[in-house]
Amino acid sequence: MSRSEDICILVTGSAGMLGRKLVERMLRDGHLGGRQLGELLLADVVATEMPASAPVGARVVVTDISQPGAAAELVRSRPEVIFHLAAVVSGEAEADFDKGYRINFDGSRALFEAIRREGYVPRVVFASSVAVFGAPFPEVIPDTFFTTPLSSYGTQKAMVELLMADYTRRGFLDGVGIRLPTITIRPGKPNRAASGFYSSILREPLQGKEAVLPVDESMRHWFASPRAAIEFLIHAANIDSKTLGVRRTLTMPGLSATVGDQLAALRRVAGEKAVALVKHEPDPAIAMIVGTWAQRFEADRAQALGFVAERSFEEIIAVYVEDEMNAQVEKD
Amino acid sequence: MSRSEDICILVTGSAGMLGRKLVERMLRDGHLGGRQLGELLLADVVATEMPASAPVGARVVVTDISQPGAAAELVRSRPEVIFHLAAVVSGEAEADFDKGYRINFDGSRALFEAIRREGYVPRVVFASSVAVFGAPFPEVIPDTFFTTPLSSYGTQKAMVELLMADYTRRGFLDGVGIRLPTITIRPGKPNRAASGFYSSILREPLQGKEAVLPVDESMRHWFASPRAAIEFLIHAANIDSKTLGVRRTLTMPGLSATVGDQLAALRRVAGEKAVALVKHEPDPAIAMIVGTWAQRFEADRAQALGFVAERSFEEIIAVYVEDEMNAQVEKD
Repeated sequence: MSRSEDICILVTGSAGMLGRKLVERMLRDGHLGGRQLGELLLADVVATEMPASAPVGARVVVTDISQPGAAAELVRSRPEVIFHLAAVVSGEAEADFDKGYRINFDGSRALFEAIRREGYVPRVVFASSVAVFGAPFPEVIPDTFFTTPLSSYGTQKAMVELLMADYTRRGFLDGVGIRLPTITIRPGKPNRAASGFYSSILREPLQGKEAVLPVDESMRHWFASPRAAIEFLIHAANIDSKTLGVRRTLTMPGLSATVGDQLAALRRVAGEKAVALVKHEPDPAIAMIVGTWAQRFEADRAQALGFVAERSFEEIIAVYVEDEMNAQVEKD
Repeated sequence: MSRSEDICILVTGSAGMLGRKLVERMLRDGHLGGRQLGELLLADVVATEMPASAPVGARVVVTDISQPGAAAELVRSRPEVIFHLAAVVSGEAEADFDKGYRINFDGSRALFEAIRREGYVPRVVFASSVAVFGAPFPEVIPDTFFTTPLSSYGTQKAMVELLMADYTRRGFLDGVGIRLPTITIRPGKPNRAASGFYSSILREPLQGKEAVLPVDESMRHWFASPRAAIEFLIHAANIDSKTLGVRRTLTMPGLSATVGDQLAALRRVAGEKAVALVKHEPDPAIAMIVGTWAQRFEADRAQALGFVAERSFEEIIAVYVEDEMNAQVEKD
């Protein structure tokens, strides 16, 4: 039974990788911001698997917030914290222009508008992405750098950041946007995302399997572990948002590393045999796409506000080994 | 009778100050980009006064592009250049949240979408604004500075910039966005816009009338004349947009000047008696609003691409005297 002082939470995109990890983490903690968990709404276009440890107040909702009335239904019980993670990924938003705008932009707008119509002011944590940025870049991208996305996905995220800031400024909600680095090591199987190799060249060898590296070892990018991403979301839900002023979206801290740095860390953790499982098969199409991605951010504001990422790829690998492999890894 | 090689043009917001001046200018030139004017569609929510010199192909359309089907109707004849000026002003967008988003954002999106559905690729010149920026600022704002608007109007303009860039990147249209400085001296009567005094403290005294100055003489802002703004629009229609790459919106050059600079120019053009007509009546509410506005931009990219603004307030006053006062001004 949830008590009136318990905190009610809505997670959109709860069936996704981050959604599931976020919910597991909150259930493990049993509280958010020092308040016990009450109602927990797990919303996604597919049914979220109800965690075994879910409290009585947990409810799985299958819904598409871009459809009329769907968002209003989700905020009817006035969840005080809304983690808005629902999105189609960049590849899909690029392949299906209409669907990308419908889900990523119109869906977010419908959620904000439903909150405004409901007439209460929840904390909304919006998962944005460094895909709002587009090359060419300075060597280190400052917090004040402009958003010139090179994908429809990045465009949609940047537009929602603006909308969220305006709804916040107008007093309709209390939004905090966080631009996530590329989350590595993603659990699961290799996928077709252009960024997929950044995870698979570590994940597969750690399990004794081969992986394909389609780019040069000198390719540099911006990373954080899934665990760091969940910490970002939780911290964004709990911080005093007054400290943000009107600039409501923060570029999260991360680790700037090359593929070579990744492989060196793999060597130290799992030995030369693991590194030998990585086959270099250059793919110019993938090299071209990831070659336009950001390499390094300043992220001063987020760090000053207490957001923390990993400092080395050994740490990122250790998170994967602990969280996904029961802390078991063989070293030759 | 328009020949097939004549250029067909659509102007949205054609009844507004810039729309009327743009149409007058094109009719005076008789051509755009070296091609004779053919069909000329003058679209606005109110009837645009048909200029006396309008060609046979000119047509006045009363329409609201945010309404279903309205934008499709406007692009049915496939105008090759579209000047998209239609917008509700910042004061109205702030006072009526829904109307601002409907006209400034949804209307623009409907226009872009209608072009995509029509299946041709016109040059779209989008009139954006320096209202996409919000304080605090560096002393000179670089072209790579982020957009953190402090108004719903600025938010809507920034969102349309992003959308236009993505539609362009996807090959659905050929967009060029230009961020206009505060246009001074606006003809007509004093209005309630917070920026109104920047025009009225010059326009009224030039005509022997009193004007109210609600801020300190040290207040600095970013200006261009209506004539310069029309030049920006024409130049944006004619430039080779390939030179823009994927960064399709440009901050226009302007004149960084203080109220003191304005009054000194007024003194040189119209004498001390004119300056004496300006009554200083401090208004903290207006001072607070305009105090958050940008003071100076780099505008390097636009200048390199051939966009040119005035270099002094004497020039800006001279434009007003020539264009609105038949070049007649009395100096005591």
